[in-house]
Amino acid sequence: MSGYDDGNIFAKILRGEIPSQKLYEDDTALAIMDVMPESKGHCLVIPKAPSRNILDAADETLGAVMPVVAKLARAVKKAFDADGVRIAQFNETAGGQTVFHLHFHVLPVYAGVPLKKHSDGMADPDMLAEHAALIRAALD
Amino acid sequence: MSGYDDGNIFAKILRGEIPSQKLYEDDTALAIMDVMPESKGHCLVIPKAPSRNILDAADETLGAVMPVVAKLARAVKKAFDADGVRIAQFNETAGGQTVFHLHFHVLPVYAGVPLKKHSDGMADPDMLAEHAALIRAALD
Repeated sequence: MSGYDDGNIFAKILRGEIPSQKLYEDDTALAIMDVMPESKGHCLVIPKAPSRNILDAADETLGAVMPVVAKLARAVKKAFDADGVRIAQFNETAGGQTVFHLHFHVLPVYAGVPLKKHSDGMADPDMLAEHAALIRAALD
Repeated sequence: MSGYDDGNIFAKILRGEIPSQKLYEDDTALAIMDVMPESKGHCLVIPKAPSRNILDAADETLGAVMPVVAKLARAVKKAFDADGVRIAQFNETAGGQTVFHLHFHVLPVYAGVPLKKHSDGMADPDMLAEHAALIRAALD
């Protein structure tokens, strides 16, 4: 495992160098829409503290981020009347990680609708903006 | 979403009514081998506090369990020289949840080796015991 490189896209989003559809932000974490959604409402929770993934993250970072993940899970379920929610967190390339800043996927699941592949392409920005508004409105 | 039913198998394991291959235990969580592993070293982290899933879990429960998940992630990677680790947490039937007590899957991933299906059957108990010993030895 290599270390942390602050040139990754989530570090750039956290620094405001790249735009994102923001859903929620507090001192410890930022939640945004995933631009390559595997399901309607797929979003990401990104701790602000730098770590490559769960293998090198501080306990304090992990302890603070999970209540935010739960908050987004409840919000996406409510916003889209989803039947279930999956939380996924990938570590290292073999584990499915493509951006090397710790992040959690929050995936609404709809009965009978298989998840799309993450690499199926960029979503329409207007649709993402519309979904983001629904999620923000459904936050606790 | 229904509520919490303490007749679920993880509640029985937490109460000691059903045996398990224990890996780690503290005041807040128990880590055990998954008896239907999707990869070598697949284990589970189960908070002791009762909740159905992430949608109804207390922030305190979530904050305490993630450092334990990370501890197990580091241990399985070390124990089996895994190339990556996936963390998965399922909510409601449509989301893949089959036991309705909050739990986190810790899945070692090996390059070029696809994950097995969870329903591929019970693992050999002797193999699980051997893997459990390796994980316990690799804990921080």
